[in-house]
Amino acid sequence: MKARVHVMLKNGVLDPQGEAVRHALGQLGFDGVESVRQGKVIELDLADGTSEDTVREMCEKLLANTVIESYSVEMG
Amino acid sequence: MKARVHVMLKNGVLDPQGEAVRHALGQLGFDGVESVRQGKVIELDLADGTSEDTVREMCEKLLANTVIESYSVEMG
Repeated sequence: MKARVHVMLKNGVLDPQGEAVRHALGQLGFDGVESVRQGKVIELDLADGTSEDTVREMCEKLLANTVIESYSVEMG
Repeated sequence: MKARVHVMLKNGVLDPQGEAVRHALGQLGFDGVESVRQGKVIELDLADGTSEDTVREMCEKLLANTVIESYSVEMG
Protein backbone atom coordinates (compact mmCIF):
# COMPACT_ATOMS: atom_id res chain seq x y z
CA MET A 1 0.00 0.00 0.00
CA LYS A 2 1.01 3.56 -0.62
CA ALA A 3 1.13 6.62 1.58
CA ARG A 4 2.01 10.15 0.61
CA VAL A 5 3.31 12.68 3.12
CA HIS A 6 3.54 16.43 2.50
CA VAL A 7 5.91 18.41 4.69
CA MET A 8 5.70 22.20 4.48
CA LEU A 9 7.27 24.98 6.49
CA LYS A 10 4.73 26.43 8.91
CA ASN A 11 3.19 29.78 8.11
CA GLY A 12 5.39 32.54 9.42
CA VAL A 13 8.59 30.54 8.96
CA LEU A 14 10.76 32.20 6.34
CA ASP A 15 11.07 30.07 3.18
CA PRO A 16 14.19 31.22 1.29
CA GLN A 17 13.86 28.41 -1.28
CA GLY A 18 10.33 29.46 -2.13
CA GLU A 19 11.39 33.10 -2.26
CA ALA A 20 14.21 32.21 -4.67
CA VAL A 21 11.74 30.40 -6.93
CA ARG A 22 9.35 33.39 -6.86
CA HIS A 23 12.17 35.71 -7.82
CA ALA A 24 13.40 33.44 -10.61
CA LEU A 25 9.89 33.09 -12.07
CA GLY A 26 9.65 36.89 -12.16
CA GLN A 27 13.00 37.11 -13.96
CA LEU A 28 11.73 34.61 -16.54
CA GLY A 29 8.78 36.90 -17.29
CA PHE A 30 6.04 35.11 -15.37
CA ASP A 31 3.99 37.92 -13.88
CA GLY A 32 1.55 37.68 -11.05
CA VAL A 33 3.37 35.12 -8.95
CA GLU A 34 2.45 36.43 -5.54
CA SER A 35 4.08 33.89 -3.28
CA VAL A 36 5.77 30.52 -3.47
CA ARG A 37 6.25 27.96 -0.71
CA GLN A 38 8.40 24.93 -1.30
CA GLY A 39 8.11 21.73 0.67
CA LYS A 40 8.81 18.03 0.48
CA VAL A 41 6.67 15.16 -0.65
CA ILE A 42 7.56 11.66 0.48
CA GLU A 43 5.93 8.64 -1.17
CA LEU A 44 6.10 5.51 0.94
CA ASP A 45 5.45 1.97 -0.26
CA LEU A 46 4.33 0.14 2.89
CA ALA A 47 3.34 -3.34 3.97
CA ASP A 48 -0.42 -3.90 3.68
CA GLY A 49 -2.30 -2.99 6.82
CA THR A 50 0.01 -0.20 7.93
CA SER A 51 -2.17 2.35 9.68
CA GLU A 52 -2.26 6.09 9.20
CA ASP A 53 -1.23 6.41 12.86
CA THR A 54 2.01 4.57 12.08
CA VAL A 55 2.73 6.96 9.23
CA ARG A 56 2.03 9.91 11.53
CA GLU A 57 4.52 8.44 14.00
CA MET A 58 7.10 8.30 11.18
CA CYS A 59 6.44 11.98 10.53
CA GLU A 60 6.82 12.94 14.20
CA LYS A 61 10.01 10.92 14.64
CA LEU A 62 11.80 11.45 11.35
CA LEU A 63 10.10 12.97 8.35
CA ALA A 64 9.13 16.40 9.70
CA ASN A 65 10.78 18.82 12.07
CA THR A 66 7.59 19.75 13.89
CA VAL A 67 9.14 22.86 15.42
CA ILE A 68 9.09 24.58 12.04
CA GLU A 69 7.27 22.17 9.71
CA SER A 70 3.74 20.86 9.43
CA TYR A 71 2.83 17.63 7.69
CA SER A 72 -0.19 15.95 6.18
CA VAL A 73 -0.71 12.28 5.40
CA GLU A 74 -2.74 10.75 2.55
CA MET A 75 -3.23 7.00 2.55
CA GLY A 76 -4.25 4.98 -0.46
CA MET B 1 -5.60 31.45 -7.05
CA LYS B 2 -3.46 28.57 -5.95
CA ALA B 3 -1.55 25.93 -7.86
CA ARG B 4 0.36 23.01 -6.49
CA VAL B 5 3.17 21.33 -8.39
CA HIS B 6 4.68 17.95 -7.52
CA VAL B 7 8.14 17.18 -8.85
CA MET B 8 9.39 13.61 -8.49
CA LEU B 9 12.41 11.80 -9.84
CA LYS B 10 11.40 9.59 -12.78
CA ASN B 11 11.15 5.86 -12.23
CA GLY B 12 14.53 4.28 -12.73
CA VAL B 13 16.42 7.34 -11.53
CA LEU B 14 18.27 6.53 -8.32
CA ASP B 15 16.83 8.42 -5.33
CA PRO B 16 19.50 8.47 -2.60
CA GLN B 17 17.42 10.77 -0.39
CA GLY B 18 14.49 8.38 -0.47
CA GLU B 19 16.82 5.46 0.14
CA ALA B 20 18.30 7.23 3.18
CA VAL B 21 14.79 7.80 4.57
CA ARG B 22 13.88 4.15 4.01
CA HIS B 23 17.01 3.05 5.85
CA ALA B 24 16.45 5.45 8.74
CA LEU B 25 12.82 4.31 9.17
CA GLY B 26 14.08 0.71 9.41
CA GLN B 27 16.61 1.74 12.05
CA LEU B 28 13.81 3.38 14.04
CA GLY B 29 11.92 0.10 14.09
CA PHE B 30 9.34 0.76 11.38
CA ASP B 31 9.05 -2.55 9.55
CA GLY B 32 7.59 -3.13 6.15
CA VAL B 33 8.76 0.07 4.49
CA GLU B 34 9.41 -1.30 1.03
CA SER B 35 10.45 1.79 -0.82
CA VAL B 36 10.55 5.53 -0.39
CA ARG B 37 10.72 8.24 -3.05
CA GLN B 38 11.25 11.84 -2.07
CA GLY B 39 10.28 14.78 -4.20
CA LYS B 40 9.39 18.43 -4.05
CA VAL B 41 6.07 20.16 -3.71
CA ILE B 42 5.78 23.79 -4.77
CA GLU B 43 2.72 25.83 -3.80
CA LEU B 44 2.20 28.89 -5.95
CA ASP B 45 -0.08 31.80 -5.20
CA LEU B 46 -0.93 33.22 -8.62
CA ALA B 47 -2.87 36.08 -10.14
CA ASP B 48 -6.46 35.10 -10.90
CA GLY B 49 -6.91 33.69 -14.38
CA THR B 50 -3.48 32.11 -14.65
CA SER B 51 -3.90 29.01 -16.79
CA GLU B 52 -2.64 25.52 -16.11
CA ASP B 53 -0.62 25.83 -19.33
CA THR B 54 1.27 28.76 -17.82
CA VAL B 55 2.08 26.69 -14.73
CA ARG B 56 3.26 23.84 -16.97
CA GLU B 57 5.53 26.30 -18.74
CA MET B 58 6.98 27.30 -15.34
CA CYS B 59 7.67 23.61 -14.69
CA GLU B 60 9.38 23.10 -18.05
CA LYS B 61 11.49 26.24 -17.73
CA LEU B 62 12.39 26.25 -14.05
CA LEU B 63 10.68 24.02 -11.54
CA ALA B 64 11.53 20.58 -12.91
CA ASN B 65 14.58 19.13 -14.60
CA THR B 66 12.63 17.14 -17.17
CA VAL B 67 15.63 14.97 -18.04
CA ILE B 68 15.33 13.18 -14.71
CA GLU B 69 12.16 14.54 -13.09
CA SER B 70 8.47 14.33 -13.86
CA TYR B 71 5.93 16.85 -12.63
CA SER B 72 2.21 17.13 -12.09
CA VAL B 73 0.11 20.24 -11.70
CA GLU B 74 -3.05 20.69 -9.60
CA MET B 75 -4.96 23.93 -9.96
CA GLY B 76 -7.47 25.24 -7.48
